[in-house]
Amino acid sequence: MAVLVECVPNFSEGSNLEKVAKIIAPFNSTQGVKLLDYSSDRDHNRTVVTVMGEPKSVKNAMIEAAGIALQEIDLRCHQGEHPRMGAVDVVPFIPIQNYTMEEAVVLARETAQDLASRYDLPIFLYEKAATQPARENLANIRKGEFEGMSEKLLLPEWKPDFGPDSIHPSAGVTAVGARMPLVAFNINLNTNNLEIAHQIARCIRHISGGLRYCKAMGVELKERNIVQVSINMTDYTKTALYRVFEMVRFEARRYGVEIVGSEIIGLAPMAALVDAAVYYMRLEDFKMEQIIEQRMLE
Amino acid sequence: MAVLVECVPNFSEGSNLEKVAKIIAPFNSTQGVKLLDYSSDRDHNRTVVTVMGEPKSVKNAMIEAAGIALQEIDLRCHQGEHPRMGAVDVVPFIPIQNYTMEEAVVLARETAQDLASRYDLPIFLYEKAATQPARENLANIRKGEFEGMSEKLLLPEWKPDFGPDSIHPSAGVTAVGARMPLVAFNINLNTNNLEIAHQIARCIRHISGGLRYCKAMGVELKERNIVQVSINMTDYTKTALYRVFEMVRFEARRYGVEIVGSEIIGLAPMAALVDAAVYYMRLEDFKMEQIIEQRMLE
Repeated sequence: MAVLVECVPNFSEGSNLEKVAKIIAPFNSTQGVKLLDYSSDRDHNRTVVTVMGEPKSVKNAMIEAAGIALQEIDLRCHQGEHPRMGAVDVVPFIPIQNYTMEEAVVLARETAQDLASRYDLPIFLYEKAATQPARENLANIRKGEFEGMSEKLLLPEWKPDFGPDSIHPSAGVTAVGARMPLVAFNINLNTNNLEIAHQIARCIRHISGGLRYCKAMGVELKERNIVQVSINMTDYTKTALYRVFEMVRFEARRYGVEIVGSEIIGLAPMAALVDAAVYYMRLEDFKMEQIIEQRMLE
Repeated sequence: MAVLVECVPNFSEGSNLEKVAKIIAPFNSTQGVKLLDYSSDRDHNRTVVTVMGEPKSVKNAMIEAAGIALQEIDLRCHQGEHPRMGAVDVVPFIPIQNYTMEEAVVLARETAQDLASRYDLPIFLYEKAATQPARENLANIRKGEFEGMSEKLLLPEWKPDFGPDSIHPSAGVTAVGARMPLVAFNINLNTNNLEIAHQIARCIRHISGGLRYCKAMGVELKERNIVQVSINMTDYTKTALYRVFEMVRFEARRYGVEIVGSEIIGLAPMAALVDAAVYYMRLEDFKMEQIIEQRMLE
């Protein structure tokens, strides 16, 4: 079975595309790694890269790309709208296939250690890889940005997890973490009553008593004159898409409202969809290896 | 988007595993081709190989493997339980992704032409690639087997589609065709009344008035003390799995019987399952490219 991890590094360069091409080159040239997507934003002066592949290969390509980014990017003369604290700003690892979150956390820590020792770069671990609760939220780590980071690192509670206790002069600090893939899953209702979408969102989302890995809110789709429960699934392996779908269905029923459709925005892991097929068709003992295309990934 | 075709060649050698290794070597060494599976049966004296990949690469690997098979196999001294007419007995191409049946038929014909001209081998086209109705069914072509093929080829209606009008002395004739992937999909009922499974099978299968690409029969699962509607889906792109499932559900209802589970035996294309998720969760505008793993195949 294929072992796949996704990595979505954010680099603080989005205007000089020659530099961007140099930085992402290792993702194209490393065996076992596939560059799925990258987008550079001039206003943010930032490039978001999506790669996937065999974990060690992804890690090695990532370390190589970071080395190039450190040569190409000098944060002392960097301007952009997006908050940033490092040339290699954030490096999240996301388990996709046959890879546990625990393994992704280990990979994040190994990557952090290598980045720190090879480039003398201070690293904070975040989200599932965090070593303390205050570092789980990336925004906490990034607060103060590059310009305020020298001072922040003087505080004992902001001693980096790896690397020196002071910033890299031109590259600041980097956050390396592990998180689950997000699935953006919206469910449309045959009503234009926004209050109903709000009420259903309240029932299903974790924060107000609903499902553990579900964030939701009601939104209007004015062009279609209907409302939508807009949902972010933060761990589809534990809170399945079909469970949210069925819950929205039975909550809507009390208003005499029905689901008219749903949508997945952007990417979703294959298992998030196959799960639903397995549930609705009551498939017994189905294994992902039974999917022909899955064999091509092995 | 990845373009993928499957090929399941059957070679008339299943006891000398050194020969088998030589024959399948091109499927391991050709870029763009993946050897998914092969199994050699000594009693049948036959090896069934499953490969998948980019169409031209699969074709080239197939032609190379056939050349080796022609060197290694001499049907004049071949014995085995499985009916066979050639050293390279049958070569079916199966469209998997972003490849139409029409394209698979063209690929089958090109492969047939190349095999014929390169190895002076007579070829019959079969199933979707057949040039006349009597050649659609492989059993019709194979009737008489290797030993009777010289005489059969004297008949004007059995002039090969490509190659010489007489058999290859040691390798006989080869059938090359194109067909859809089969999905073996069984649905279990909460009754031990076999007659109910038979009745439901009659309602859903094509031959007795049911769905166009569905074959079905009732079988007993004695160990579980229940019955099953055992189904072969012959074109899941036109007769969807969920449609058969829902039809079995509403036919069972008249007997007060319910579906307790289902199973997919062996391999199924990803789209056969994703289709069901899209139907049951009413997904609008979902595209296979939204599946993360799919991107790895591109």
